Amino acid sequence: MPAHRFRTQPLGGLAGRTLTIEGDEARHGVRVKRLRVGEEVELLDGMGCVAGARVESVNPREPSVVVAVVRVEEVSPERPRLHVMTSVPVGAHAEEMIAGLSQVGAASWQPLACARSEATGRSLRLERLQRIAAESSKQCGRAWDLEIGIEVSLEEALRHAHVVVADRSGRWYEPIGADEITLLIGPEGGWNEDEISAARDAGAAIASFGRHVMRIETAAVAAASVIMHKGGVR
Amino acid sequence: MPAHRFRTQPLGGLAGRTLTIEGDEARHGVRVKRLRVGEEVELLDGMGCVAGARVESVNPREPSVVVAVVRVEEVSPERPRLHVMTSVPVGAHAEEMIAGLSQVGAASWQPLACARSEATGRSLRLERLQRIAAESSKQCGRAWDLEIGIEVSLEEALRHAHVVVADRSGRWYEPIGADEITLLIGPEGGWNEDEISAARDAGAAIASFGRHVMRIETAAVAAASVIMHKGGVR
Repeated sequence: MPAHRFRTQPLGGLAGRTLTIEGDEARHGVRVKRLRVGEEVELLDGMGCVAGARVESVNPREPSVVVAVVRVEEVSPERPRLHVMTSVPVGAHAEEMIAGLSQVGAASWQPLACARSEATGRSLRLERLQRIAAESSKQCGRAWDLEIGIEVSLEEALRHAHVVVADRSGRWYEPIGADEITLLIGPEGGWNEDEISAARDAGAAIASFGRHVMRIETAAVAAASVIMHKGGVR
Repeated sequence: MPAHRFRTQPLGGLAGRTLTIEGDEARHGVRVKRLRVGEEVELLDGMGCVAGARVESVNPREPSVVVAVVRVEEVSPERPRLHVMTSVPVGAHAEEMIAGLSQVGAASWQPLACARSEATGRSLRLERLQRIAAESSKQCGRAWDLEIGIEVSLEEALRHAHVVVADRSGRWYEPIGADEITLLIGPEGGWNEDEISAARDAGAAIASFGRHVMRIETAAVAAASVIMHKGGVR
């Protein structure tokens, strides 16, 4: 692992050039990580580019770091591309879930409005969740950020191809052989009958990911890791 | 789902009898859930018995609830029996992990002392974690509590049969066809070379559960759900 990872502007075409890092990113690198000239660092832009770089100079007063970009690699997004849409967990659990989904390799997350949802996506600060996803990319080395989207209705969600609806009434999940999958996680009170009927009518797979009732954030991470693992090509 | 779940003393042999519930359990049922005479409730003892019961009387002042036990079912533990041993997550993440492992169906958890661990199991209040596991059983309907054990060394952990060591250097996890599995999750800084050698020498499977570096609590829940799902018989 490199000494430090920086989040940067888009990196395409920057191999062989220098880049100045400022603001919070620079402050953390200089004051907390105490980076020194000559150290190797990794740069991530959250949009598929990962770069190896070397610290050229450090300005500790108004923190900034100049790095020489040695090589830039374009990384393909993880497969299957998994779009997770969930009823909104209450309190801090939404942030915990975003970090977890990022670590297990989901492609995107959107709040899903369900009949029994206790919280609404409209109350969420989506920009804050996107920052958490970006921070998680740095921690876990993701080349592509988990994308945060706006709230959708079940009707809209069911229009996607290859939809998997997590519900304990379904069969044990089996890979559905698609390269792009949409996973729907309902509220803790469960889907109502109309919602399950709508899912069936839309041709969605109703699948179980465990014997027990799970909290939204646990169900999302557990089901996403099973889908990514069963469909997983490394 | 029943109107309410109560955590009780061992339930074996209590079918057809009445049971008085007191203390915090009764307080919650009476003051928060406002249970009424005649309502059906579920009783769980955390040791494999689940009972259907009916509220016979409610004493709201010094809260207590008398229930008639209608039927008692003995539930077999979930298979495979998965023993999870992890480096200790810092702060509140240990509690979050215990709740998650309970929901995905692991059998037990123990702190694992690793070379690069940032926290030690000796600083944990294991009784508190056991209470969290019991509370989670009520929420998710587990008949058997996740068992919390004391800290073990890697050497001790590797003496178990069918050990799976989570590490990104390993192959994509494939079911190892055992009915009882021990899963080891290292610290966020990773295992050191001696630890990986010791695991190989002991015949453990080194297996990967994802492309990215995960936090301990995420890795534990993600890997446990993959193992339970791939080995899962409902």
